[in-house]
Amino acid sequence: MAGTESTGTESTGTELDRVRAGDTRALARLISLVEDESPRVRSVMKELLPATGGARVIGLTGSPGVGKSTVTGALVGAFRAGGGGRVAVLAVDPTSPFTGGALLGDRVRMQQHATDEAVFIRSMASRGHLGGLAASTPQAIRVLDAAGFELIIIETVGVGQAEVAIASLADSVVVLLAPGMGDAIQAAKAGILEVADIFVVNKADKPDTQQVVRDLRNMIALTEREPADWKPPIITTVAMTGEGIEELVSRLDAHWSWLNSSGELARRRQARAREEITALAFAALRGRLSAARVDALARQVADGSVDPFQAAEELLNHHAGADTEF
Amino acid sequence: MAGTESTGTESTGTELDRVRAGDTRALARLISLVEDESPRVRSVMKELLPATGGARVIGLTGSPGVGKSTVTGALVGAFRAGGGGRVAVLAVDPTSPFTGGALLGDRVRMQQHATDEAVFIRSMASRGHLGGLAASTPQAIRVLDAAGFELIIIETVGVGQAEVAIASLADSVVVLLAPGMGDAIQAAKAGILEVADIFVVNKADKPDTQQVVRDLRNMIALTEREPADWKPPIITTVAMTGEGIEELVSRLDAHWSWLNSSGELARRRQARAREEITALAFAALRGRLSAARVDALARQVADGSVDPFQAAEELLNHHAGADTEF
Repeated sequence: MAGTESTGTESTGTELDRVRAGDTRALARLISLVEDESPRVRSVMKELLPATGGARVIGLTGSPGVGKSTVTGALVGAFRAGGGGRVAVLAVDPTSPFTGGALLGDRVRMQQHATDEAVFIRSMASRGHLGGLAASTPQAIRVLDAAGFELIIIETVGVGQAEVAIASLADSVVVLLAPGMGDAIQAAKAGILEVADIFVVNKADKPDTQQVVRDLRNMIALTEREPADWKPPIITTVAMTGEGIEELVSRLDAHWSWLNSSGELARRRQARAREEITALAFAALRGRLSAARVDALARQVADGSVDPFQAAEELLNHHAGADTEF
Repeated sequence: MAGTESTGTESTGTELDRVRAGDTRALARLISLVEDESPRVRSVMKELLPATGGARVIGLTGSPGVGKSTVTGALVGAFRAGGGGRVAVLAVDPTSPFTGGALLGDRVRMQQHATDEAVFIRSMASRGHLGGLAASTPQAIRVLDAAGFELIIIETVGVGQAEVAIASLADSVVVLLAPGMGDAIQAAKAGILEVADIFVVNKADKPDTQQVVRDLRNMIALTEREPADWKPPIITTVAMTGEGIEELVSRLDAHWSWLNSSGELARRRQARAREEITALAFAALRGRLSAARVDALARQVADGSVDPFQAAEELLNHHAGADTEF
């Protein structure tokens, strides 16, 4: 098939070749397959797998309004200016179960890189069920990795369990805060203190910046972290002017060195694979549960004739007896 | 065993009797069992089931700072002043996967009802895994229902998928917003427009209140809702002074009448049972997956020797061959 033009039925091999050659449209198509949870994803993943492992993945998370896109843009600029290779930004929105797309103009704010062909920017939303992104984000990372991007930045909106889960898929996790947003407490509530490798207090030209840094330092001191030999630094930035971005880059480089020398990188990538295969296994099971059976059991639980544990057990036994093909 | 003092081994029958007689400590113990996902929950649920179905469940959700606790407090006051029976407030915090407890002083702000013995207030946090609250919240509702509470208010913090999931467990869902918080857009992003039965714009003495109402009205017009014959009203309140609370109560009563006359109540309670038994089934499965097996497969996926779909399949087949007891 090599050499033939795209007909919509071209083999993945051809697509992979195109993607590796920098064909942005082919890349966008592959990521759409992942986002749509297409059955074709399976063969694509199998094909891409041997070409992966080379990319460095940075996760960047924080509440709306802290300046995630501005920091991401500044990071991309610094990486490109420093002679770095191709960069991909994946903006993942775990808060959109219904709309299926981001309302915010995050991509618009990244326009400074819109003309740089070595920078690929893409949004991805969940498809209406918790856990969807747990499987699709590692797959999108794999696609970008196989496509030859040297750096992949995963940007997630908000704070909460979903963000903690997605952040845990990155090699390095950057948590962004800003003065005047009560963010240190929010971060503590969301459990994000435990997963951050680097804290950035952005908009550091605003009052109360030092108060946020102090609050953060106090809360980190109360937090148990695993492993204990990386102590997350707190950096202040004004991403709009580029202030502090150089330090962020150097801290990220230090973390990357530590990841490689400590063996933590392999551990994190196994953790990412664990999340992915567990999410895939549950998604497959969910697809197999008979909706009619679930509804019948739910009616019995609602009218009080069957207790919920018994109903769950019947559901599982029903599945255990069913066809277990993918 | 009836008549003997609590020894920590008393039968659930005795506990149920105590709880129905208004014993708050026995009630708190039962809810702790649910929160801790104790193995004893199963027998408790079986025992409580025949005593349930009488309570009316109102879900109340919104971002931090919109005044959820104040509105809840005002609602409780209006219900009690109107001759209503016992009221329970369950504050569910889906954003605390690690801390295992609410940092906010929500219960403190409810102190006006602390001396009213007919009002029970309790916080509940998730135990570190997504989906935990999907099973434990319906169980806590069942405990409170069996205990004879006429009204149960489920208050959830924040906006996002977790809140949408929890809100969908209530008979009536109230979504709170406030001026100046960009909340209408946040609500749209979180998919909360689709699940709201009543919108409350609180802090309506602030500027921009009418702007929020207009934004909300425009966004609701763009939203597809199921079923179509309940059109969610938008109410403005100043909960601190009690302004608008009377209207909220009357709208809730109108929604309750509609739920009963339209058959929607039965449909929602079946949906709640469906969420619960699915969550229980997945939790049981999660418990059965061999951690060693998952780790071994994750290593193979991380080093590129096995594709993730094949790994998920092997995981499921491994489970299918395992013991399927609860």
